Amino acid sequence: MRPELSIEIIHKIRDKLKDFVNITPTVRWEHSGPKNLFPKGTEVFVKLELFQKTGSFKVRGAMNVIQSLDPAELSRGITAVSAGNHAIAAAYAASKKSTSALIFMPKTARKLRVERAINFGAQVILCDTQTEMFERAEEAKIQEGRIFVHPFEGPMTVQGTATAGLEFSEQVSDIDVMVLPIGGGGLCAGFSAAIRQIWPNVEIYGVEPEGANTMAISFKSGKTIVKEDVNTIADSLAPPKTEPYTFSVCKELVDDIVLVSDDALRDAMQILFYDLRLAVEPAAAATAAALCGPLQGRIAGKRVGIICCGTNISSEDFFKLSKLK
Amino acid sequence: MRPELSIEIIHKIRDKLKDFVNITPTVRWEHSGPKNLFPKGTEVFVKLELFQKTGSFKVRGAMNVIQSLDPAELSRGITAVSAGNHAIAAAYAASKKSTSALIFMPKTARKLRVERAINFGAQVILCDTQTEMFERAEEAKIQEGRIFVHPFEGPMTVQGTATAGLEFSEQVSDIDVMVLPIGGGGLCAGFSAAIRQIWPNVEIYGVEPEGANTMAISFKSGKTIVKEDVNTIADSLAPPKTEPYTFSVCKELVDDIVLVSDDALRDAMQILFYDLRLAVEPAAAATAAALCGPLQGRIAGKRVGIICCGTNISSEDFFKLSKLK
Repeated sequence: MRPELSIEIIHKIRDKLKDFVNITPTVRWEHSGPKNLFPKGTEVFVKLELFQKTGSFKVRGAMNVIQSLDPAELSRGITAVSAGNHAIAAAYAASKKSTSALIFMPKTARKLRVERAINFGAQVILCDTQTEMFERAEEAKIQEGRIFVHPFEGPMTVQGTATAGLEFSEQVSDIDVMVLPIGGGGLCAGFSAAIRQIWPNVEIYGVEPEGANTMAISFKSGKTIVKEDVNTIADSLAPPKTEPYTFSVCKELVDDIVLVSDDALRDAMQILFYDLRLAVEPAAAATAAALCGPLQGRIAGKRVGIICCGTNISSEDFFKLSKLK
Repeated sequence: MRPELSIEIIHKIRDKLKDFVNITPTVRWEHSGPKNLFPKGTEVFVKLELFQKTGSFKVRGAMNVIQSLDPAELSRGITAVSAGNHAIAAAYAASKKSTSALIFMPKTARKLRVERAINFGAQVILCDTQTEMFERAEEAKIQEGRIFVHPFEGPMTVQGTATAGLEFSEQVSDIDVMVLPIGGGGLCAGFSAAIRQIWPNVEIYGVEPEGANTMAISFKSGKTIVKEDVNTIADSLAPPKTEPYTFSVCKELVDDIVLVSDDALRDAMQILFYDLRLAVEPAAAATAAALCGPLQGRIAGKRVGIICCGTNISSEDFFKLSKLK
């Protein structure tokens, strides 16, 4: 394992984050339908990271970055780009370190997410395009000296998400298969780094939406890519590109990537509601969709871990997204 | 404390139930709205009993009763009456002891609940009236020798629910105020019995729907009552009567009972969705409704515990019930 992601370092990062981050619960998936949902003998454990502060794992990475800033950097503030969960996490983390957050979000961002970032004290500017968001954040970096807090790239972000994996390994014993969602790959990289050191033989599968399969393409081509035309209801798993650090950690640790369709995500949202009493945004249903679909064969009879990575969605949007096909 | 509810006994019951009951998580209520929801300095901890097996605390009591049956009793089976959560719990508990369950439910019971009881192997008979349900269960008791598993009355049921209180006391330290929902009072009696022994000075408040205030009436009149015209959206908190054992334990341990309206329950369902990412049936929002309403003054600056007691509801019903006023 690369030194910055050693288990000793992950323990230290967890200790550093402990006042700002929740230990999120893990529950066993109890299926209550008439037919088996998974192959016989399969046991599934779900880390409920949606009960994390700010509603998603993103706070682990953002807090680790912002906590490392020196007083001069904190006096200049941070900037970020995000469609939602990272915006809220960065706003929260900035507020905890009493620094200012200037966040660029798409004008199509869900109202509830914009509202939550603002409630944590961020200044939010809505932009027409992804390109504009990144350009304006770059401007804020150069002109105001703000620190750019990336939604998924870089060792510090990955160290933060690794604490979720460490936590999970203390909540459940002997996992054979771990299934992790991939947007930019920040969660997958960190979580995998932790559990690979604890369970060396664990099989790790990443899950991407079919319409936002940037990491799958990168895995095949062996390099980072840009894909402008991402299109999925799992908007939290749909950055338009892969980045080198996160890609290289995922490539090293993840055994395979599987894809799930929007329809499979909708079905999984309904299944999670029925079985686990969870009403989550599409991204948080990706791992469940993979279990019910492309991974059925590979989980048979095994002890399987998944994560509900987060949710920031209105009840109206939950209802609409989980129904429409 | 009466001997059958001593803390030593509760420990023993927990040990006896451990293979059939989940340890449910407790999370801190993180408010993310623009204004304070609770008075300054108030901290709220929520026991997520909706992640219990069968989706509600009911399994703790039903399992304790059914586990105590001898082989002859188990060979004759159990019977129960319930609008939902107790039916599912009794069906599950019966299946775990390989005994048969004959359950009488109202024909107005939510489809999902009937389905879940059947999925656990119960025979469900839908009845026209509450009276018919009880009469037919009585018949099954006399004619088939089935054991009647009460939804809330009796020492064994209360011992079962007490394990939730014991668990909570190990998850959170130094609670000043505990708020518990009351339908028949089974959860409230048991939970209170446990925590009163651990935190002798804890203030305990019960919450009932305005339209199903049987325990509040019993508290005032000092005796059990029957009230046929219960009417609330919190159907899981609406038995038509109080019973002597549960009433007497509640009367001894609960400091006061407050009432919440159906509108307050609907608002609380929305607040729980917004802040805690929980989509629950009305009954599970009762304690939150009390915090936001009649208990505001009494929780100020304190460490407060509440319980989301369970949920078995379709996403359609969640959406409808949390909206309509």
